[in-house]
Amino acid sequence: MAEKMTLIVFSGDMDKAIAAFNLAIGAASIGMEVSMFFTFWGLNVLKKNEGATKSKGIMRKMLNFMNRGGTKRLGLSKFHMFGMGKWMMGKLMRNVKSPSVQELLIMAHQSGVKFIACTNTLGMMGLDKESFIPEVDSYAGVATYLADAKDGRINLFI
Amino acid sequence: MAEKMTLIVFSGDMDKAIAAFNLAIGAASIGMEVSMFFTFWGLNVLKKNEGATKSKGIMRKMLNFMNRGGTKRLGLSKFHMFGMGKWMMGKLMRNVKSPSVQELLIMAHQSGVKFIACTNTLGMMGLDKESFIPEVDSYAGVATYLADAKDGRINLFI
Amino acid sequence: MAEKMTLIVFSGDMDKAIAAFNLAIGAASIGMEVSMFFTFWGLNVLKKNEGATKSKGIMRKMLNFMNRGGTKRLGLSKFHMFGMGKWMMGKLMRNVKSPSVQELLIMAHQSGVKFIACTNTLGMMGLDKESFIPEVDSYAGVATYLADAKDGRINLFI
Repeated sequence: MAEKMTLIVFSGDMDKAIAAFNLAIGAASIGMEVSMFFTFWGLNVLKKNEGATKSKGIMRKMLNFMNRGGTKRLGLSKFHMFGMGKWMMGKLMRNVKSPSVQELLIMAHQSGVKFIACTNTLGMMGLDKESFIPEVDSYAGVATYLADAKDGRINLFI
Repeated sequence: MAEKMTLIVFSGDMDKAIAAFNLAIGAASIGMEVSMFFTFWGLNVLKKNEGATKSKGIMRKMLNFMNRGGTKRLGLSKFHMFGMGKWMMGKLMRNVKSPSVQELLIMAHQSGVKFIACTNTLGMMGLDKESFIPEVDSYAGVATYLADAKDGRINLFI
Repeated sequence: MAEKMTLIVFSGDMDKAIAAFNLAIGAASIGMEVSMFFTFWGLNVLKKNEGATKSKGIMRKMLNFMNRGGTKRLGLSKFHMFGMGKWMMGKLMRNVKSPSVQELLIMAHQSGVKFIACTNTLGMMGLDKESFIPEVDSYAGVATYLADAKDGRINLFI
């Protein structure tokens, strides 16, 4: 049976998403079974880049507008500076031919990494499945995470 | 022997506290033995909601005033916006009948989750045990954490 | 064979660095084998306190200027307040004779904790090994981390 790694991606920051995908792709490449649980702001990583997120109620609309998400809209956890730090970081990454978050997401998916979106957060933020990319493997809650992580050799909260 | 989970709650953010309590309650509900170690800003989660924190020295007083804590005073890690994001999040949670941080804390405690407050942080911030809620099970340091985590199936730093 | 602990130090915040070193020193003191992987902003902890970081290109120069690093230049994750919170925290720590980040780093190193700097981040930020302190034990990537963490009893992302 393959050794397991689980990652909880709580943060929607670009730099943390890059770290998470690099760990996931590395683990998959040595034959580990990897599950990524996206929760809270981390769900932004799995949102579609195109179009607005539909949601009901004025407050949810506001929250989802500020928090639109999609791999191309993630900010940095530090030095974001209204987008300038992010733009610089993107340029530095292209200079050394580092893959973008979007490219890492696709690589992880193609390596067999499982993407799980947290249903509790969906409920709270008033989001439906249409806001998310087709690469999401399943929608589940904390029980699913715990069942996986109990057998994980490496479990991280990012 | 029950399987163990340990959580280090370093952050005093409301959203991270919600995630931590949800994980703890979920694990306790499937029979796991759960310990939560609250350290640094995470100690705010365990502070009383009523009254000011007593401490000696002008700087400690300032720090403890800014950092008053209590489940009802926690901010968001993102979109806090001087309390507005927090207010919105609280309202959204009530709309979908999500329990508040305070309710989650009580549920976790009643499920048998152990709350441990970090004595090193208490010393540094000049806090005494009277600042904390009675649900705290013990006051301990890093050695206690490590003894628990070594046998943990799931160990996370939140 | 000694039991292992691995820590990914992603954050360059002073408070998180203190937590990471305290965990590492505690684990080493009970005979555990500890590896700390410093990546992204975490690399700041391993930068020299003296002198500027050399790097090529105007954007890298800007990024490395803002992000100079060294144990004495780390900020707080909360209440940094342009350095005032950091100054207060440093003073509170000295009052109770808590060791500084610099002292913790040396203690960890002398306890046999291994410091590993992430080569991917070095490449992206255009840093060379001369920017780092001599206590760095090795420069390596995600594969090295995974090999270690797979056998870790405690693996944390900080």
